[in-house]
Amino acid sequence: MIRFSHRETINFIKSFILPITMNLETIREARERINPYIRETPLYHSSCYSQALGAEVFLKLELLQEIGSFKIRGAVNAILQLSEKEKVRGVLTSSAGNHGQALACAARMVGVSSTVVVPQNTPETKMKAMKRFGAEVIVFGRDYGETEQKGRQLERKTGRVFISPYNHPHIIAGQGTIALELLEAEPGLDTLLVPVGGGGLIAGIALAAKALKPGITIIGVQDEACPVFVESLKAGKIVDVPYRHSIAEGIHGLVEKETITFPFIQKYVDEMLLVSEDDIKEAIRTLTKRHCLVVEGAGAATSAALQKYKTMFRGRRLAVLVSGGNIDSKSLKEIL
Amino acid sequence: MIRFSHRETINFIKSFILPITMNLETIREARERINPYIRETPLYHSSCYSQALGAEVFLKLELLQEIGSFKIRGAVNAILQLSEKEKVRGVLTSSAGNHGQALACAARMVGVSSTVVVPQNTPETKMKAMKRFGAEVIVFGRDYGETEQKGRQLERKTGRVFISPYNHPHIIAGQGTIALELLEAEPGLDTLLVPVGGGGLIAGIALAAKALKPGITIIGVQDEACPVFVESLKAGKIVDVPYRHSIAEGIHGLVEKETITFPFIQKYVDEMLLVSEDDIKEAIRTLTKRHCLVVEGAGAATSAALQKYKTMFRGRRLAVLVSGGNIDSKSLKEIL
Repeated sequence: MIRFSHRETINFIKSFILPITMNLETIREARERINPYIRETPLYHSSCYSQALGAEVFLKLELLQEIGSFKIRGAVNAILQLSEKEKVRGVLTSSAGNHGQALACAARMVGVSSTVVVPQNTPETKMKAMKRFGAEVIVFGRDYGETEQKGRQLERKTGRVFISPYNHPHIIAGQGTIALELLEAEPGLDTLLVPVGGGGLIAGIALAAKALKPGITIIGVQDEACPVFVESLKAGKIVDVPYRHSIAEGIHGLVEKETITFPFIQKYVDEMLLVSEDDIKEAIRTLTKRHCLVVEGAGAATSAALQKYKTMFRGRRLAVLVSGGNIDSKSLKEIL
Repeated sequence: MIRFSHRETINFIKSFILPITMNLETIREARERINPYIRETPLYHSSCYSQALGAEVFLKLELLQEIGSFKIRGAVNAILQLSEKEKVRGVLTSSAGNHGQALACAARMVGVSSTVVVPQNTPETKMKAMKRFGAEVIVFGRDYGETEQKGRQLERKTGRVFISPYNHPHIIAGQGTIALELLEAEPGLDTLLVPVGGGGLIAGIALAAKALKPGITIIGVQDEACPVFVESLKAGKIVDVPYRHSIAEGIHGLVEKETITFPFIQKYVDEMLLVSEDDIKEAIRTLTKRHCLVVEGAGAATSAALQKYKTMFRGRRLAVLVSGGNIDSKSLKEIL
């Protein structure tokens, strides 16, 4: 007879049972749970993009969350579901920045200690923010893949609860709450444009949006510099891709082979688009000048896709996730 | 018997009769009128400023109006009250930028032609935006005072309807609608921090806020480089002050001697604060880094006052007008 440890059992439930049982109700419950702690961000009509595209373009300003990113949704949803024992052990994550900041912020809300492992290229802004929320920050790894392995390793060593930035049902459900806000504010939306890193955001949004409105088109956007899901969808499984650094470090890094986000993406995402670093920089400039918004690379990827694939959106009524705004002043200065 | 021309009669009504009859109801009517055309902007709690000040600080994000400034409120309110004859004649204004853009935008909404006279130091961003809305842009004058005189002169010459950026009851009423949103969103507010250029914004806000909540404190903020109202309040009348250029061109310029904003400010504004150019630049950096917002000099003046006069706000529950975000990329780059 094979015996499972308590942790193995929990991980089995998280990886196999919970994702299967996730549905619109899970996302609705997440919304109830997190609403006192997060902002319902504005969905603004953009004349600028609408005119340029011959479409009705709405920007979902998730960068206006208190921590400058949508990641607070998933983090709060995960933290609020910790058991009392887990709270004592504290939480741990690996993050390119925004999830780490979100988890540290959420952990502080309920008085739980947090540790974040970040890759070497993490912007100073993001590390400072984590420390402000009382997190212990460990810099490790040349890229997110290495950082993530280190995090998993520390989990086994320290007993802290590892909360992946994407590969976790509570994270996916938290991010999915955005879809409920979108379709409440603009029920006529026919297309959603979502940035894809580890896939937690698009998995949650796609799950909820397709349940509410089966005909809606969900489009993911990745950085050419790191097209993990574009390649993985072709291969039918998560594959490693060679990748280089770019301004969009928030959607970079290799993805865990067994990530639970992949089946959601396979099932619900209609299309994936790629944008270049130059496209992203151009979008950052546009958002600065025309919308008074400071947007980080990963957050500007969707707007970059708007500009690059203009004709494809003609006549549509689409929402564009502007997911985060934590960019170093130095980088912003270089781009402007 | 003295005879008045039609225009003289209208100007007499605008300058003397309307201001006396303005009250909370005027502002409420303005809100009804402009609401289909403008955004109810978010009022966001800022942890960053709240912690630094030991206060509850809320930012009113007027820079998220479609044109990047609160000025759209007054402009729409004025344009929608033009007579059919006036619509045919078109509108005219003098503006350091945002009001010009707002008036051009509002005029286009109802198919009215617009002309804007701008001073030489007007940022390129703002002029381009006016032209995008179909305005004729005339560059004239080293400072706003000269530009305004030119505008009044053109009014007499061309027959276009001059709509002052501040010295006009419809403009004041339009800007005052912000106070209704503020006290609806946060009825517990005890202090409002408002930037002061020609005084249209603070006049409208103070009128409405004091009517709704007589105990509320209204604080105006001016740039040290151009302290017109600070000096005028001391003198008991509008005085000219020597002034130099700074990053906050949006709240610069001499003010018309008989401006109807002055009695409102004398009656309702509790205090005036001055900030320096360095204070403003520091605030722009903070708003960029901590709130993902691109804010122009005039729009950052209130946040600059927060940082400069910290202790004065301890324990208060205050709203800070972040009034506009139309800053040239070049200037922003230099400040970051």
